[in-house]
Amino acid sequence: MNSLRIDSDRFQHDFEALARIGSTAQGGVHRPALSENHLAARRWFRERIAADGLEFRQDPAGNHSAVLPCPHAQAPTLLLGSHLDSVPNGGRFDGALGVLAAYEVLRTIRDAGIRLPFHLEAIDFTDEEGTLVGLLGSRALAGNLPPSELAHPRGGRAALLEGLHRAGLQESEIPRAARPPDSLAGFLELHIEQGPRLLEAGADIGIVTGMVGIGSFLLTFTGRADHAGTTPMHARRDAGLGAAEMIVQSSLAMRSFSDEVINFGHIHFSPGAFNIVPHRAQLTLEYRSPTQAGMDALKSTLTELAHASARKHKLELEIDEQGCVQPTRCSPGIQQAFRQACKRLGLKAVPLPSGAGHDTQALAQVCPAGMIFIPSTGGSHNPEEFAAWPACVNGANVLLHAVLEFANDFAGG
Amino acid sequence: MNSLRIDSDRFQHDFEALARIGSTAQGGVHRPALSENHLAARRWFRERIAADGLEFRQDPAGNHSAVLPCPHAQAPTLLLGSHLDSVPNGGRFDGALGVLAAYEVLRTIRDAGIRLPFHLEAIDFTDEEGTLVGLLGSRALAGNLPPSELAHPRGGRAALLEGLHRAGLQESEIPRAARPPDSLAGFLELHIEQGPRLLEAGADIGIVTGMVGIGSFLLTFTGRADHAGTTPMHARRDAGLGAAEMIVQSSLAMRSFSDEVINFGHIHFSPGAFNIVPHRAQLTLEYRSPTQAGMDALKSTLTELAHASARKHKLELEIDEQGCVQPTRCSPGIQQAFRQACKRLGLKAVPLPSGAGHDTQALAQVCPAGMIFIPSTGGSHNPEEFAAWPACVNGANVLLHAVLEFANDFAGG
Repeated sequence: MNSLRIDSDRFQHDFEALARIGSTAQGGVHRPALSENHLAARRWFRERIAADGLEFRQDPAGNHSAVLPCPHAQAPTLLLGSHLDSVPNGGRFDGALGVLAAYEVLRTIRDAGIRLPFHLEAIDFTDEEGTLVGLLGSRALAGNLPPSELAHPRGGRAALLEGLHRAGLQESEIPRAARPPDSLAGFLELHIEQGPRLLEAGADIGIVTGMVGIGSFLLTFTGRADHAGTTPMHARRDAGLGAAEMIVQSSLAMRSFSDEVINFGHIHFSPGAFNIVPHRAQLTLEYRSPTQAGMDALKSTLTELAHASARKHKLELEIDEQGCVQPTRCSPGIQQAFRQACKRLGLKAVPLPSGAGHDTQALAQVCPAGMIFIPSTGGSHNPEEFAAWPACVNGANVLLHAVLEFANDFAGG
Repeated sequence: MNSLRIDSDRFQHDFEALARIGSTAQGGVHRPALSENHLAARRWFRERIAADGLEFRQDPAGNHSAVLPCPHAQAPTLLLGSHLDSVPNGGRFDGALGVLAAYEVLRTIRDAGIRLPFHLEAIDFTDEEGTLVGLLGSRALAGNLPPSELAHPRGGRAALLEGLHRAGLQESEIPRAARPPDSLAGFLELHIEQGPRLLEAGADIGIVTGMVGIGSFLLTFTGRADHAGTTPMHARRDAGLGAAEMIVQSSLAMRSFSDEVINFGHIHFSPGAFNIVPHRAQLTLEYRSPTQAGMDALKSTLTELAHASARKHKLELEIDEQGCVQPTRCSPGIQQAFRQACKRLGLKAVPLPSGAGHDTQALAQVCPAGMIFIPSTGGSHNPEEFAAWPACVNGANVLLHAVLEFANDFAGG
């Protein structure tokens, strides 16, 4: 059993086939959640599962799985997986590698004829990236998707309804994707690091200790639309200037934070003409911290700065909170299983927090959950993100042996 | 002659009748150039001229005039006027007041039996606002409308052709609207200020010294799209932050300028997602100055600031110039005639530059041209723009007496 390994060629062949779906000229993929490209990737996965003679499962949140059932029908399920959707013009590794590694582990265990004390399921979660809602599939499965987020999704209501319709899903049925917590043995995820720390540390595997909390706001500054030629600078109420001030001041304020990050990803000025002072500026703001204290401090600092920018430029300000994810700790038992697997495989592992949200975060609310990172370059959410193939294979083998470790502990416990 | 005044009631009655044509629920008017509403306003003007027993004239650019001929057929023409078109959902005063003041002055002079040494013509210029081309009628009359602007009009080629067709005009005939410069004695325009300076100065009349030059840029900052959770703040190349820094720094730099203004009217971040650091930020920048020295100083200050913002945030920068209009000086003789008229009427006049472009700018290329502003509130290019009626009457009386002054100088000169 200790010498069992995943099939690198089969894994790579599938990875490359999948990367062609929604591929971009820059070498990445464009598969926003429930877009035509994303649905094509999901069809490919479904057909792959059928061709391999495995059981396919789809739930009312659109999550797609391959299932390796255990003879005991009442046994719980160990989930492995990630997501096939991407950010707009994203990279090939983010999410997709985790789904295929999970699937490869499942095939390896099936082919080896290993009998596990739980059902094993390799799952592709819907809309992890948040083009529509964010962690839609994993939170629905965890029974933890507030109806308010479907009513006011961060990508807009129209986009959500359009996506659900395109995928043949019913909004009213989504809550039925929730699984009883005692039916879940745990969740394991493999993901690229999307940051420089593993390479800097010379490590093969990062064992994730926890995930940052993520909050987001839509800020709307409102002033007055004036003729940009006849209105002196001092007499304006320029909403665009208020928004720009907010970006610059927030960037300066972040010097007082170490583990926290923010982002202003989208901005819009109305009416948007060369010669009219913008009367409205809308700005999206996302903030992250690994601790609840950091989340609270960031939130109060940023809302104070937004109010100060509005006051300074005589603007009105509306702050709409767009949902918030609490910081999450990974299961110590699963971290231990990953450590044991790395040891067995002779790989150097380091513990580290995740700056990104992942499906693991949603599952950690209802069952033991944990994840590993493999080293990657080129940042993330862009076509340059890259992981060397041997690193991908290492990660999949760690996932495989962590499942076997987990099964031992499960049987023993 | 010194006691001659325009007929306030007749002027107001016409102003209110005209304001009903294309009126909006917000209290403004919607009369984009050569739209049905605009053509209805022009028909009203033509019928008014006919009803008053005055001579009507239309030229191949669609300019409409009432003419009070002088006995000497070879005498040149003094033009008075403005425009009846509006921006979409504009106000009632911008342009329309100037046409009706011109027309009221012409009627007053006719009724008083005054003989002038030139033909007097109250003119409505086509498409001042630029829904189609911008200063179409006045530049055609001045023989200064480049064919390239008809070939690539800012409102689009289809809209231009549709508008000309609707008005019964032929594109190929437009150049025939050009008048020989020596047939033009001068041009006088009355307009609302569209800004707060006259009210702040407690003045009745603004005598325009010149019209600002207008330059515009499209600025493109390019950095790197990173994951907003996994990339530390210091490791980013955030194009949005560079653009925001440019807006804030430019606003601070404008404190060193007095008669100059700038505007950032439009902005776009790519890819535009909550959780991706923007790799590209595009920004439109318009700058205006009444002097060429001011234009040059602004241009160099702003381009330096853009480069500094790019350097500070490790971004690339592209600056595309989007066209430039040179500053125009108003005729000193006409400014003097306006000053004399204000003195005679006991009105407080202040000199000031115009921050907006006007038909006067086109006429100033070929004949002595000048304009006055009357105090207005509510900014401009919106339904709230407003001028108190006594201020409108003051303006029309200044226009009347400036014509009489100009006639004296003309006869004497």
